[in-house]
Amino acid sequence: MLKFSVILGNVGQCSDRYMTGGYGRPYEIEELFDRVASIEGVSGIEFVENWQLNDKTVNKVADFLKSYNYKAVAIIPDHFGTPIWGKGAFTNPDAKVRKAAVDKTMHCVDLARAIGCDTISIWNGQDGYDYPLQADYMNAHKWMAEGFAECCDRAPDIRFSLEYKPKEPRVHSFLANVWTALAYCLESGRENMGITIDVGHSLEAYEDVAEAVCTAMARGKMFHFHMNDNWRGWDDDMIAGSVRTIEYIEMFYYLRKYDYKNFISTDQYPYREDSRDAVEQTVKWMQAFEKAAQRIDMDRMQKILDANDAVASTAYMRELLFG
Amino acid sequence: MLKFSVILGNVGQCSDRYMTGGYGRPYEIEELFDRVASIEGVSGIEFVENWQLNDKTVNKVADFLKSYNYKAVAIIPDHFGTPIWGKGAFTNPDAKVRKAAVDKTMHCVDLARAIGCDTISIWNGQDGYDYPLQADYMNAHKWMAEGFAECCDRAPDIRFSLEYKPKEPRVHSFLANVWTALAYCLESGRENMGITIDVGHSLEAYEDVAEAVCTAMARGKMFHFHMNDNWRGWDDDMIAGSVRTIEYIEMFYYLRKYDYKNFISTDQYPYREDSRDAVEQTVKWMQAFEKAAQRIDMDRMQKILDANDAVASTAYMRELLFG
Amino acid sequence: MLKFSVILGNVGQCSDRYMTGGYGRPYEIEELFDRVASIEGVSGIEFVENWQLNDKTVNKVADFLKSYNYKAVAIIPDHFGTPIWGKGAFTNPDAKVRKAAVDKTMHCVDLARAIGCDTISIWNGQDGYDYPLQADYMNAHKWMAEGFAECCDRAPDIRFSLEYKPKEPRVHSFLANVWTALAYCLESGRENMGITIDVGHSLEAYEDVAEAVCTAMARGKMFHFHMNDNWRGWDDDMIAGSVRTIEYIEMFYYLRKYDYKNFISTDQYPYREDSRDAVEQTVKWMQAFEKAAQRIDMDRMQKILDANDAVASTAYMRELLFG
Amino acid sequence: MLKFSVILGNVGQCSDRYMTGGYGRPYEIEELFDRVASIEGVSGIEFVENWQLNDKTVNKVADFLKSYNYKAVAIIPDHFGTPIWGKGAFTNPDAKVRKAAVDKTMHCVDLARAIGCDTISIWNGQDGYDYPLQADYMNAHKWMAEGFAECCDRAPDIRFSLEYKPKEPRVHSFLANVWTALAYCLESGRENMGITIDVGHSLEAYEDVAEAVCTAMARGKMFHFHMNDNWRGWDDDMIAGSVRTIEYIEMFYYLRKYDYKNFISTDQYPYREDSRDAVEQTVKWMQAFEKAAQRIDMDRMQKILDANDAVASTAYMRELLFG
Repeated sequence: MLKFSVILGNVGQCSDRYMTGGYGRPYEIEELFDRVASIEGVSGIEFVENWQLNDKTVNKVADFLKSYNYKAVAIIPDHFGTPIWGKGAFTNPDAKVRKAAVDKTMHCVDLARAIGCDTISIWNGQDGYDYPLQADYMNAHKWMAEGFAECCDRAPDIRFSLEYKPKEPRVHSFLANVWTALAYCLESGRENMGITIDVGHSLEAYEDVAEAVCTAMARGKMFHFHMNDNWRGWDDDMIAGSVRTIEYIEMFYYLRKYDYKNFISTDQYPYREDSRDAVEQTVKWMQAFEKAAQRIDMDRMQKILDANDAVASTAYMRELLFG
Repeated sequence: MLKFSVILGNVGQCSDRYMTGGYGRPYEIEELFDRVASIEGVSGIEFVENWQLNDKTVNKVADFLKSYNYKAVAIIPDHFGTPIWGKGAFTNPDAKVRKAAVDKTMHCVDLARAIGCDTISIWNGQDGYDYPLQADYMNAHKWMAEGFAECCDRAPDIRFSLEYKPKEPRVHSFLANVWTALAYCLESGRENMGITIDVGHSLEAYEDVAEAVCTAMARGKMFHFHMNDNWRGWDDDMIAGSVRTIEYIEMFYYLRKYDYKNFISTDQYPYREDSRDAVEQTVKWMQAFEKAAQRIDMDRMQKILDANDAVASTAYMRELLFG
Repeated sequence: MLKFSVILGNVGQCSDRYMTGGYGRPYEIEELFDRVASIEGVSGIEFVENWQLNDKTVNKVADFLKSYNYKAVAIIPDHFGTPIWGKGAFTNPDAKVRKAAVDKTMHCVDLARAIGCDTISIWNGQDGYDYPLQADYMNAHKWMAEGFAECCDRAPDIRFSLEYKPKEPRVHSFLANVWTALAYCLESGRENMGITIDVGHSLEAYEDVAEAVCTAMARGKMFHFHMNDNWRGWDDDMIAGSVRTIEYIEMFYYLRKYDYKNFISTDQYPYREDSRDAVEQTVKWMQAFEKAAQRIDMDRMQKILDANDAVASTAYMRELLFG
Repeated sequence: MLKFSVILGNVGQCSDRYMTGGYGRPYEIEELFDRVASIEGVSGIEFVENWQLNDKTVNKVADFLKSYNYKAVAIIPDHFGTPIWGKGAFTNPDAKVRKAAVDKTMHCVDLARAIGCDTISIWNGQDGYDYPLQADYMNAHKWMAEGFAECCDRAPDIRFSLEYKPKEPRVHSFLANVWTALAYCLESGRENMGITIDVGHSLEAYEDVAEAVCTAMARGKMFHFHMNDNWRGWDDDMIAGSVRTIEYIEMFYYLRKYDYKNFISTDQYPYREDSRDAVEQTVKWMQAFEKAAQRIDMDRMQKILDANDAVASTAYMRELLFG
């Protein structure tokens, strides 16, 4: 049985560069927990540090987790939403900011320990570049590797999971795809460095998500997973299952085949929908995909894969969907 | 009930720029008809002129159509596969070639009349450009409009259907998307000029195919339809339904809603599959999508659309697929 | 000589969906004018209504225009940044909101007349859809056409210029590319309906911008122009010329060839740069491209285009850049 | 001084999936050498095995190399153009074909030694998949790693250089981007395994090529380089410099900065141009880019990079191009 979680802010408010004041109204933490609690099938919560989880809220959050009986699944340090990170966090040209990026991560380690969480999902979205001849690539790569390694070394009890994405908010991100994240893991040699696959980021990188999952799982590096949907060219952060069906059945087939044990969090931006309802739909779709994957005859599917038989494969999928 | 047809060459051999000699073996026309005949649910045949239909084969083709009881659905003139068209057909810088493009189309009109076909589907894939500052855009646009109009005027009994595509074989095609094709129809004012929507070309143009269908049908311009699948960035010409589910249910919903009467042809390049089997899968998927669309409660769906309610919409789709 | 203008907010502050509070500090109108005034070569200002131009500021703005001797080039009505437009402006499912979209446009007409401006550049970015089976395409298209036509009819002295864009903030925009905008112009038959080409939107739509320019200019429909740069897959709104060289020389060649008389506005989001400096760079690049285009021998280039001679063309461009 | 080479077939004939018989006429080996010889600035030749270099031609080729005084730069084994590889070479589901892929590579090693060449550039373009649930990703990845390692071990005097590409001829290639190739190198630990960066493949993977170059050079893994141009979405294999200017100046800046010593080969498909002339243009553009990069003041540029100063960077580039 897969375990589903929700990034707390997902059931809150969204804005974008045009609707800067937000599409809907903001919500208090209490409300956010309440909204998640009204969705069946969720057993964990993930936090964006600073936005909902910080020194001031940590006790309250711990209480909520306890009273609602939620696992604290992961914390995403704010390496992207405060002006200090505008030109990068781990790769900022200013050494003081790079140090701050590590310190910020270690602060999240403290918060994690306080709420019984063992995973820091690093999404350093400001580490990248917008222009040709803007960044010193070799220095940036080196700084990023050093920063990640330092975090791993300073908190060996915590898993640091790298969430890659090819672009946005920078036009080019340094941590661009699953192989980039893997190469950083390989070169660091740290046991507690792994990978967060965000479905939408993976699709944006022109990956088949199932292949990315296998790439990470083959090395024991699939530490965490984010679920949503998009039309491929951008991280649209839509309701998972609203666009894709077969690609997601494939993905859940591999999660079953290789027995994925960690949580899957929703990661959405429901700009125009009631965000609670949009998140609920993602959970329901994930349950449907999990059930569909369970209905797959593992031997029959393995024979198809062993033969690379696309005709038999698509016929099987049609049978699964339409009988 | 929708009517399904097959482009005859689809059940034959494919090559690409690397496997220049072809992935499988070539087939004779007899075999091609035989292969299509073994697929249930097909009632029409579409032809690429020159490849399978020409002066030498036209009588034989007419006989086959009769004996197998197939409707001749459309003819695609060879405006792309003979070296004369290398730098364009209707927009070739050489006036003699531009004239030849029209003459070639009119020759297809003769072939069409000989086999009881009323639709010429023009896919002028070589009309475009590869480089900046290569084409004179205004002249090219004008020549293309004149060529199309001349065809329409010389054969008022025939429907000339423009098949758009954003790129390939040219890096930029002149007839790039559904609105381009529509603008040519509007400016020409010819009743017998319309649009062929190829699903893969539409997706390559970042269209939602259902919107493209509505755009053409609202003006009575949806003359013809080609079916396949891809991963969005390129015209992969795969088995329809092998990737996409909900987008195709949406498309078939609109075909039902606006009562599409013309044929839907498979248009695939099954490089590595048995091409007959790959085409059969597309037909079976289309039947499944048609049935799914018929199960949609039209009032319920209209209420969803009237409210732009994405949450209700995706919930309904999940219900349709997984109960 | 081309005329360059600046969208006033371009020299101000930017935010995005992660850095919701903005990358830099906000600026007052006075400062914004001051910042533009420090850039040589600018003779016009364009406004986003509501953000910098509204009933309260209109007199002040008129004074500034006068004292700095700037032409008021165009006004972009706020059809995208206020929650009422969240699910669309001209195509909102709510008839009252659709009416408000027209009224808002007419309010901008009043503002325009007050500051001596004759162009409303409509960028109805919220008109589109995010999900399959969310929008009723035929209704939406019809409503959009009616809304545009009503504006044109109610202010025959004003030019209404449609700024297309394939996506963002909606995952699919209705007004997707230059041919969409043209089709709306053609079907409306309104003389005062035209097209705003935003370079970045055009590139995002996989257009060669020069071809889009020719498409609009051939019909007298190129009412306005926005300049910036990107890496093709998204509207990155970067400094124009920071990425592209030859495509922009081509574009300026055609502006010269067909004698474009209207303004070119910068349209950028300089998230991390000093926004005044970033805008200045765009102006300087435009001046460089204009000069380069003036150095092109029109006869020599025409011969190249008449022959579709890519080899001669690229050799000529290299000569132009590197001697 | 950079060293430029030509893939011999580049000055010959091209075909695609529509123009299956080729756009121009075919050429004999003698002619191909002659055509290259007429281009100034070329000092090496690269071969596609089977097409121009095989057991029958190897002696003739060796003679030509000698008489024209060309270095044999690299050999690309035919892992893509013969039907046996249709469903993959190193990852073919059939173990016999996988063995054949290694044997084919070792045969190229023999040919390489015979013509004094030390680099095998492996482009295993058929290793990938077209459909969801077609390939067994874990097996395929493992087989590919084993095959590459076996080649490296059996010929320690030869450098095996992996040429990545995200897609085509498969819809998804296993060796998708620079980080994939690097991860294979890292995990294999073989000194003689490295990376071929093809500019067009890199752009297709949404890489900034200069960053990819730095990624490979930082690890001593940049074994080889292929040059061409495209519009980003596809491997258009155009004349290098026909589209891009600043991105290529950036690239040549880094080749200078890190003192790239190996050859740069043209890798083009000049479908509609005289192929010799198209290749010559690429060589001339590379010479222009190299000179431009030499004119860059290394200290001034380093200061810009150290500050991530996009404004100063683009101003410098404009100065370089337009004075």
